[in-house]
Amino acid sequence: MKPEDLLARIRVVLCRPSHPGNIGAVARAMKTMGLHDLWLVEPRQFPDPEADTRATGAVDVLQAARVVPNLSAALADTSFAIALSARQRDLGPAVGAPRASIARLLAEAAHAPVALVFGNETMGLSNEEVRECQAAATIPTNPEFSSLNLGSAVQVLCYECRMSAFAEQPPLASQGATPFAAPAATHREIDGLLQHLEQVMTDTGFYNPEQPGRLLPKLQRLFARARLEADEVNILRGLLAATQKPTGHGRKSG
Amino acid sequence: MKPEDLLARIRVVLCRPSHPGNIGAVARAMKTMGLHDLWLVEPRQFPDPEADTRATGAVDVLQAARVVPNLSAALADTSFAIALSARQRDLGPAVGAPRASIARLLAEAAHAPVALVFGNETMGLSNEEVRECQAAATIPTNPEFSSLNLGSAVQVLCYECRMSAFAEQPPLASQGATPFAAPAATHREIDGLLQHLEQVMTDTGFYNPEQPGRLLPKLQRLFARARLEADEVNILRGLLAATQKPTGHGRKSG
Repeated sequence: MKPEDLLARIRVVLCRPSHPGNIGAVARAMKTMGLHDLWLVEPRQFPDPEADTRATGAVDVLQAARVVPNLSAALADTSFAIALSARQRDLGPAVGAPRASIARLLAEAAHAPVALVFGNETMGLSNEEVRECQAAATIPTNPEFSSLNLGSAVQVLCYECRMSAFAEQPPLASQGATPFAAPAATHREIDGLLQHLEQVMTDTGFYNPEQPGRLLPKLQRLFARARLEADEVNILRGLLAATQKPTGHGRKSG
Repeated sequence: MKPEDLLARIRVVLCRPSHPGNIGAVARAMKTMGLHDLWLVEPRQFPDPEADTRATGAVDVLQAARVVPNLSAALADTSFAIALSARQRDLGPAVGAPRASIARLLAEAAHAPVALVFGNETMGLSNEEVRECQAAATIPTNPEFSSLNLGSAVQVLCYECRMSAFAEQPPLASQGATPFAAPAATHREIDGLLQHLEQVMTDTGFYNPEQPGRLLPKLQRLFARARLEADEVNILRGLLAATQKPTGHGRKSG
């Protein structure tokens, strides 16, 4: 199944959201990551102009959203659901970081619809709602400041879904220039540069071949690490050759 | 170095942010993931009450933020910086997904401060600014709707930093009940259950030992997959035993 089709099978369920603006932010976060299927369990107010405003270009997600009276209705045809909850619930699934359970979510999505389930902004999910899910996850926040808003939480989870659906290699927007990629310098070209450098350094007295020390090995290490390009070797050798010629400046002061 | 200390070495640099509200949202996103060091290059308006409002509990990050006249000043003492940019720039570092470059960012953070560099909300970063960075990354969005706002982009990147700093095992808020974990049933206990089931199924005529088919192996597979607990075996055997006794209901109708 194509990654885009797997993502289309993941529904985001919001249980009793209080603020229409948050519903809009969730729609936008979903669509940026290729998710489209939004379910709302007992929203306090929906539809609402504030939701449309915050959704910006994702109003289509809001228009297709389904409103249902309870979580069981939202999950009826799913085979796997992750409850977002920081608190471990009595007899609920063990709470882990999202990445592992999202890998499982994507695997299950190949066979049936699956869900990410978020609770109310202040109250979260009820114990009964968490028990309706096969897994539980919480975004690992700073223990001293865990105040993630609903839109941000959905953003992070949908991002993880997209990364997982594309096996961590999602296509990137390919705008602008092609990355500059010149052919790498060959071993012989780099040897030539090192010999040229040795010559100039010896001529100028910067380097004493009688007491070589570690100067040349250090330069060799630098060029190896930089993965020099053929063009760059030419620039550097041109620069070295220029220092070997008497210059106008040199003649004046000499 | 402790993960918290590594995260403290990552600075977030915003170049020419237009909306004070976004600066506040960025401060909040940073702090939820344990980052605190915010640098602002030529902000249009800062400080600003709108920034404080959007930061909620992260006003301390705003108060400690440094305002500098150019990106070079913000990066002066860093050894590695990632430019956030969807567009590949001429002679700029190749643009990749964030996860790989953030792993490198964290490795470099052990030695020196490092930076995540974000551009203006509409204009992004200039080519010159991207070239001041050692790596470039873009969040892999839906090609048909890539409208991530600044706060959401910072949220995703800081989340990746936290995951990487803690080697994907960040501590989770440990509120609520301990996950229910009873001792697993032993092989002998499960054998006992299977024999008990076979007995009940045979007595009731649901199962014919002369034509066993795949019924028992299927039940055995189910119990193996479910990793039955000793307590659950007791519940199931109690239930089976109850069906073997004549019931009040059975007596009445019999």
